[in-house]
Amino acid sequence: MTVRQLALPELTDACAQLGVQGVGLWREPVQEYGVEAAAKLVRDAGLTVTTLCRGGFLTALDTDARARALDDNRRAVDEAATLGTDTLVLVSGGLPPGSRDLRGARERIADALAELGPYAESHGVRLAIEPLHPMYAADRCVVSTLAQALDLAERFPAHQVGVTVDTYHIWWDDRAPEQIARAGAGGRIHTFQLADWTTPLPEGVLNGRGQIGDGSIDMREWKGYVEAAGYTGAIEVELFNDPLWARDGREVLAETAARFVEHVVR
Amino acid sequence: MTVRQLALPELTDACAQLGVQGVGLWREPVQEYGVEAAAKLVRDAGLTVTTLCRGGFLTALDTDARARALDDNRRAVDEAATLGTDTLVLVSGGLPPGSRDLRGARERIADALAELGPYAESHGVRLAIEPLHPMYAADRCVVSTLAQALDLAERFPAHQVGVTVDTYHIWWDDRAPEQIARAGAGGRIHTFQLADWTTPLPEGVLNGRGQIGDGSIDMREWKGYVEAAGYTGAIEVELFNDPLWARDGREVLAETAARFVEHVVR
Repeated sequence: MTVRQLALPELTDACAQLGVQGVGLWREPVQEYGVEAAAKLVRDAGLTVTTLCRGGFLTALDTDARARALDDNRRAVDEAATLGTDTLVLVSGGLPPGSRDLRGARERIADALAELGPYAESHGVRLAIEPLHPMYAADRCVVSTLAQALDLAERFPAHQVGVTVDTYHIWWDDRAPEQIARAGAGGRIHTFQLADWTTPLPEGVLNGRGQIGDGSIDMREWKGYVEAAGYTGAIEVELFNDPLWARDGREVLAETAARFVEHVVR
Repeated sequence: MTVRQLALPELTDACAQLGVQGVGLWREPVQEYGVEAAAKLVRDAGLTVTTLCRGGFLTALDTDARARALDDNRRAVDEAATLGTDTLVLVSGGLPPGSRDLRGARERIADALAELGPYAESHGVRLAIEPLHPMYAADRCVVSTLAQALDLAERFPAHQVGVTVDTYHIWWDDRAPEQIARAGAGGRIHTFQLADWTTPLPEGVLNGRGQIGDGSIDMREWKGYVEAAGYTGAIEVELFNDPLWARDGREVLAETAARFVEHVVR
């Protein structure tokens, strides 16, 4: 998503040239390209698919909408398995229209996970609940903290349900370091994502995730927390950023790789 | 601030006509009108000043900037005392330019409170730390939850430092109800403010606070929490909202009063 301006063949080519060994994919471009074809493309480029984004949106009250959401999540699991990734990231969903019941919405997510967890397991896929920043609680994700995500995940086996740790969503939370330790102890850190916090936020607050190093987040500090919690998996950089999307994708990818080395690796 | 389009004499007149008995004031219009004159105006209209907004911005690293901030907060205490309100709301401040150290910034707030608390007490004024929504953590207020605000406040006597409970900032937080109980038990709920959560958020996310009843927050639920915690003070409605500011102020005030009756009182 960081370089969504690149078509999949350009993306895999650019990754290979830069020495980027893994890539997180989103469902829409994969579906457009064809899931099997995308899997072959990525495999032939020597790339690992780190995660598939995204399943979720599990908060509907309406029975039909709920059934459609579960169907779509099963399809997302199938796609993840075809792509050869073991992790499907979940954006859980916001409040249904007219509802003010955050607790009820969170409980419906648990109900859905009880159905989807075993299905994912049978396909070799783990679900990774992503707590989204509290500014998305109404319209995108009622799971706002790592603690809430773990409260949900821990009702299920770790190989079925874990969490996504994304710096952008949790950097403000003084409880997050202890929750990362909790997640690590349970084997539930299923992926670790980076984006920086920059202001002012754009209208709608979706596409303002800052390039690594441009904002308020100490990336090394957070990398330290997940490493101390035993995480050894891939680190993904996931930026939604209109100015970055308007630039040459290969240039943005190269810049992102350089920022990663400067602010995370060194 | 909800009807900042009304000059102070219009505001006091409109409040009197509507039967609104208390009003929270902001420093800028009070200073423009003259603090003594504003105090007389409000008193003559039979109105109580519920709180003065705002002190704070206590996170500067620079020594001169820090001294200026403390001076300004002492002036704010003086103004509160002159206006006859016992509560000064604090917006604590964001990260200094280039800093990524949230913990350090929070600690500097504590240092400042140690100086300001006794000064406020000697003027009959209590400081009310307002946790702001985590989306303001970088640029406006590093205190993002009621728990953090109470961790700071509880280092000082309750008659010096307490908290502001504002639905807009805490509605997403499943720990907030227990923290309201904690605040109430300690006599630290110094004011209770309402605004609703509406989306999409505007650019900069400052002026999107929704009219009561327009958004995702169950106002009665939160009123129930503060009442159960023993709060018997005023309930303030504080909206920052460009479309509301563009309308006739008396009409907005009447609408707000009606919404308050519909969604909070009944």
